[in-house]
Amino acid sequence: MSTNDNQPMLIFGAHPDDIEFGCGAVIAVETRTGRKAHSVVCSLGEAATNGTPELRAAESRAATELLGSTIEFLELDGDARLEIRTDHAIKLAGIIRRVRPSTVLATTCTENQHPDHARLGQLVRDAARLARYGGLGELRENEPHAIEQLFFYAVTPEGEPRDVAPILIDISSQEIIDAWTAAMNAHVTQAASRDYVDLQLTRARLLGARAGVGYAIALYPNDPMVFQSLAQAGRGARQF
Amino acid sequence: MSTNDNQPMLIFGAHPDDIEFGCGAVIAVETRTGRKAHSVVCSLGEAATNGTPELRAAESRAATELLGSTIEFLELDGDARLEIRTDHAIKLAGIIRRVRPSTVLATTCTENQHPDHARLGQLVRDAARLARYGGLGELRENEPHAIEQLFFYAVTPEGEPRDVAPILIDISSQEIIDAWTAAMNAHVTQAASRDYVDLQLTRARLLGARAGVGYAIALYPNDPMVFQSLAQAGRGARQF
Amino acid sequence: MSTNDNQPMLIFGAHPDDIEFGCGAVIAVETRTGRKAHSVVCSLGEAATNGTPELRAAESRAATELLGSTIEFLELDGDARLEIRTDHAIKLAGIIRRVRPSTVLATTCTENQHPDHARLGQLVRDAARLARYGGLGELRENEPHAIEQLFFYAVTPEGEPRDVAPILIDISSQEIIDAWTAAMNAHVTQAASRDYVDLQLTRARLLGARAGVGYAIALYPNDPMVFQSLAQAGRGARQF
Amino acid sequence: MSTNDNQPMLIFGAHPDDIEFGCGAVIAVETRTGRKAHSVVCSLGEAATNGTPELRAAESRAATELLGSTIEFLELDGDARLEIRTDHAIKLAGIIRRVRPSTVLATTCTENQHPDHARLGQLVRDAARLARYGGLGELRENEPHAIEQLFFYAVTPEGEPRDVAPILIDISSQEIIDAWTAAMNAHVTQAASRDYVDLQLTRARLLGARAGVGYAIALYPNDPMVFQSLAQAGRGARQF
Amino acid sequence: MSTNDNQPMLIFGAHPDDIEFGCGAVIAVETRTGRKAHSVVCSLGEAATNGTPELRAAESRAATELLGSTIEFLELDGDARLEIRTDHAIKLAGIIRRVRPSTVLATTCTENQHPDHARLGQLVRDAARLARYGGLGELRENEPHAIEQLFFYAVTPEGEPRDVAPILIDISSQEIIDAWTAAMNAHVTQAASRDYVDLQLTRARLLGARAGVGYAIALYPNDPMVFQSLAQAGRGARQF
Amino acid sequence: MSTNDNQPMLIFGAHPDDIEFGCGAVIAVETRTGRKAHSVVCSLGEAATNGTPELRAAESRAATELLGSTIEFLELDGDARLEIRTDHAIKLAGIIRRVRPSTVLATTCTENQHPDHARLGQLVRDAARLARYGGLGELRENEPHAIEQLFFYAVTPEGEPRDVAPILIDISSQEIIDAWTAAMNAHVTQAASRDYVDLQLTRARLLGARAGVGYAIALYPNDPMVFQSLAQAGRGARQF
Repeated sequence: MSTNDNQPMLIFGAHPDDIEFGCGAVIAVETRTGRKAHSVVCSLGEAATNGTPELRAAESRAATELLGSTIEFLELDGDARLEIRTDHAIKLAGIIRRVRPSTVLATTCTENQHPDHARLGQLVRDAARLARYGGLGELRENEPHAIEQLFFYAVTPEGEPRDVAPILIDISSQEIIDAWTAAMNAHVTQAASRDYVDLQLTRARLLGARAGVGYAIALYPNDPMVFQSLAQAGRGARQF
Repeated sequence: MSTNDNQPMLIFGAHPDDIEFGCGAVIAVETRTGRKAHSVVCSLGEAATNGTPELRAAESRAATELLGSTIEFLELDGDARLEIRTDHAIKLAGIIRRVRPSTVLATTCTENQHPDHARLGQLVRDAARLARYGGLGELRENEPHAIEQLFFYAVTPEGEPRDVAPILIDISSQEIIDAWTAAMNAHVTQAASRDYVDLQLTRARLLGARAGVGYAIALYPNDPMVFQSLAQAGRGARQF
Repeated sequence: MSTNDNQPMLIFGAHPDDIEFGCGAVIAVETRTGRKAHSVVCSLGEAATNGTPELRAAESRAATELLGSTIEFLELDGDARLEIRTDHAIKLAGIIRRVRPSTVLATTCTENQHPDHARLGQLVRDAARLARYGGLGELRENEPHAIEQLFFYAVTPEGEPRDVAPILIDISSQEIIDAWTAAMNAHVTQAASRDYVDLQLTRARLLGARAGVGYAIALYPNDPMVFQSLAQAGRGARQF
Repeated sequence: MSTNDNQPMLIFGAHPDDIEFGCGAVIAVETRTGRKAHSVVCSLGEAATNGTPELRAAESRAATELLGSTIEFLELDGDARLEIRTDHAIKLAGIIRRVRPSTVLATTCTENQHPDHARLGQLVRDAARLARYGGLGELRENEPHAIEQLFFYAVTPEGEPRDVAPILIDISSQEIIDAWTAAMNAHVTQAASRDYVDLQLTRARLLGARAGVGYAIALYPNDPMVFQSLAQAGRGARQF
Repeated sequence: MSTNDNQPMLIFGAHPDDIEFGCGAVIAVETRTGRKAHSVVCSLGEAATNGTPELRAAESRAATELLGSTIEFLELDGDARLEIRTDHAIKLAGIIRRVRPSTVLATTCTENQHPDHARLGQLVRDAARLARYGGLGELRENEPHAIEQLFFYAVTPEGEPRDVAPILIDISSQEIIDAWTAAMNAHVTQAASRDYVDLQLTRARLLGARAGVGYAIALYPNDPMVFQSLAQAGRGARQF
Repeated sequence: MSTNDNQPMLIFGAHPDDIEFGCGAVIAVETRTGRKAHSVVCSLGEAATNGTPELRAAESRAATELLGSTIEFLELDGDARLEIRTDHAIKLAGIIRRVRPSTVLATTCTENQHPDHARLGQLVRDAARLARYGGLGELRENEPHAIEQLFFYAVTPEGEPRDVAPILIDISSQEIIDAWTAAMNAHVTQAASRDYVDLQLTRARLLGARAGVGYAIALYPNDPMVFQSLAQAGRGARQF
């Protein structure tokens, strides 16, 4: 078990609804235990078919509150325009230094999905390294900070990496499912189309069936996990 | 954290020295915390260039004792002759039902290594399923048993799977390193040739460097790990 | 489009319920268009926790009828005991020569699932080759036969290959879903435990969401598919 | 079979000869059936050892005509200078909205080949998504458009992805081979060096041998293909 | 450069024509430089559609002579019946100890090809290990022997591993191509059907084009290659 | 054996210590045989926690001299800021044309490591192509040049590609180990922290154990290696 589990978790999303739809239940799990969580949303979703930037920011704030998390918006290149730039990674590293989380969550780096998702994942992975280096001038405002673990979450099935084994977080308690569903539905302009809420609950139910629980969310570790003993390592998803 | 962490761990090896060389330090870690560990060795190493079966069995017993574990020998097809047979899997499943472990360790299924290693890994993976099924006549003596997690260990670098992310177990304490080294050296007929002890310590030191600790051993989970919260998931090996 | 699409399809399963749970809806789709389908079940499920062999055979017959398919049982090594033997592949090849299908379906060859599933997949893959060779004495009773395509189906999520892109078969019509659900429920002794029916419908719904339809089933082609023009190639699952 | 098979196909190439050498025969197959095809060439090949931009544009026009396709040139960063920029993806998405194809072809995203090929593949993949989103200002001129399928073609053997199963298009008819060969030879400045025409015919003949036909071209689907029944799915390339 | 390059090479094939069709030109290259080569053929091709066992053995002998190699036949389970058995691996290991080669060639272990090919590859890989172990009774007749390198060859395109980088052997000289073609044509009963000779020459020409030479054959190393300096490592196939 | 082995080797590193820590011993091996080696360092390490740019450049010069190599510094985007830009690739291609090496070494393209390492690897791979093309204006100063082989080296274990088989260079002679260790220790500001020198020697010792020698360094070929005969191909690392 981590010795730093009272450090906050920090979650990055490319669009106002990515975080809630992709891993909202995990945030609810963590905040219910008293841990702080902070979300960083890197566009206002202005390229989407539905919803204005103002509406979407308001939806994000409402959703975040339902999960017990705080939120900030960061302007990079704009929705559907995110590029891999060192400046962006440095900005993200600056936030990591300021918030000083033990755990960071970001969208997966899988290529064949919304390009902003894959690129944000890569930028956050780089940022988590830059946050540690002592010599970057733009980052001098805050001390270097080394996070403990970087996990990726997949906003859609297409974003699930095929070559990385996930860990599964049990989100089965009714309280968690309710908070998550409410947070997803807070994205009123998005929830209607294509049954996004139903899609996410279906994904979680299928993973729950694999894990032998009601519902679960998959996270993809960026690095091998280190344990002090096997008693700490999670039980395996072995139902079939 | 597992609710069954006072259940024993069960470790399978194809030859008398596989377990100690491949994951002896992990056993030492677990038994130091009071957990029971039981080793099953599936040949007497009779195909090896050095050592008689009697000598090697005695070496295994001595090594096992140094790790705080118990041991039994199981005759399957003999050293360097192991085949994939259902009868073998059923025998292994019978042991799982009798010992009723939460955690099982076996050699990896990676093909390009000693063929007994790869095949034992596959047989144990199958056995862990068969142990759960209610209708197998030969297994009626003991109740069906579902293990919590199956991990693989690699006896040599060749046996390390390239497509599975390992977890790393911290084995850095001097007490553990001493017990492990003593257990490896108890295999007197094998330890001398090719610097096997040095090879294993070098592997563990390199993994330790990745994990930011002194020494570590890699285990390869057979199934996604399930956690109740992120605070349980291990920190990542993030040093470089 | 295949020139042989009035040839039957042939489906292999290791246990009485594999075919219905794994790809029953695909059979219903095909038989609704007048195509013949024939199921071969390679054990009576005698290792399962629930159900006698007699009961399970009767359930299979009922389920098969609901899908508009015919059925036969083939005794190989028994449930949970299947081994890779040439004799088995030759028996399966004999059935292929007798039924002379254009399409063959079998369980996937993925290793980390019920061992009978993986081995049956491998045996059927070999059998589809042997059925073509002219010189095998045991097969002389029927002329050599070359099938057009071999697809694999995954009985459980664990059986889904990670390194092969599936094709998705649209099974959304209410008639198909009803027939499939009824066929699964005909396996009375199995359907209750672990919510197998619900698991399969959830899997199909998630794949349907990816494909932009109500429900879909994934099949994994053994060989590259050949088309006369792009107009024949299916549209892509592009919803996210 | 697609319901939109009278919609045009749209093919992207990085250099004037990519399209003809990489997938010219597929275009010939489609246009012979009355389907419209449109080529977009994203540089004038000005970094090549042989040929001026003017000559190469003229060669492309001649080759395109021989295949029954139309052509336009798009200036991005210039030959051997293509970078991953959102502006480029938006321009490509604008063309997709204007042409409104059901099928799009682009160079593969495989890294170890001419860098323009890999990057154009990635840009087209992104563009196919952007073309669907309602909120991108630069794209307002044309209605959002969702393509049905994106396939990649490999200009050279190095560009063939190792981890994606191709589909094979039968191009064996003499008429098609003649049109394709003529179109390749129309690139007079390029065809001579390194036996490019012979290379492509050799590749197609080898794939034809796998498919049991005279000649074939491999296309790599970006997404799982969706079929209404197995009768639609292509027969497998099963000759050996 | 190997210090043992006057040791013989040893080539294993499952059927009488595997060796000549799969890697005959490589044998010709080696024997032209005075190295000894010995072929071991593990069935008489009795399951094939064409040719009797007697005819095929005679064809093999003629072909082998044309390549400057010697030959022996080994009976295992018979054509299309090869199984993974330790007894087979021990027999193959016995031959390795007797011939004492530095280099061993065998069919690839890739699954989706003629099952005898994949299994022979696995058996030879195991045999190369067993040949080294001192304690196997059946092998006592000859001293343990450690080979220097094991390479796999692919009899058909289906047998080419997708996840291993090959090395390419330049076989462009007219003398080599002539000897190889003659050796393939010596398999009179097989060469006619399906244009096997043309298939192999087409494969070699395509690989030659990649390597910048006339013709080349791909071999797949079982282990990382060790060099004393970079001057020894081959130049890369870098033409496109 | 390469016919051009008196051509120089050219080594690219992103930071002042990458080359010495990642592959310094290989350079020592080559220069001991009289071959010229030239290092290009693409930043002054100004983002590091320890060391000023001036100090680090001086350390690099000292280290390079100990290896018998020459050195130049190239300014791209600065330490921890490297981006994928065509301008960079063209600059690197210009150096390749000027130095005209047969062998080029660069950091691996593996994503989950210091971002500068992965990007420099990609840029060098592209540059090796651009150096060959005749039409790039900026490169007209020097004749096009085709290198013979591109190898990647991994600065840290994280940078080792999992899906490419390495070649191993034997660096066991005491003279080489001494020169390498001295060159690493010349990076005084870096060598102390995190035991970098010990890490690299441990890595080399483990690879040496696999290769059956004292110490070895792994290089990852970008392209299949071409050999004139098997006697040239290196022996396999087959110890376990």
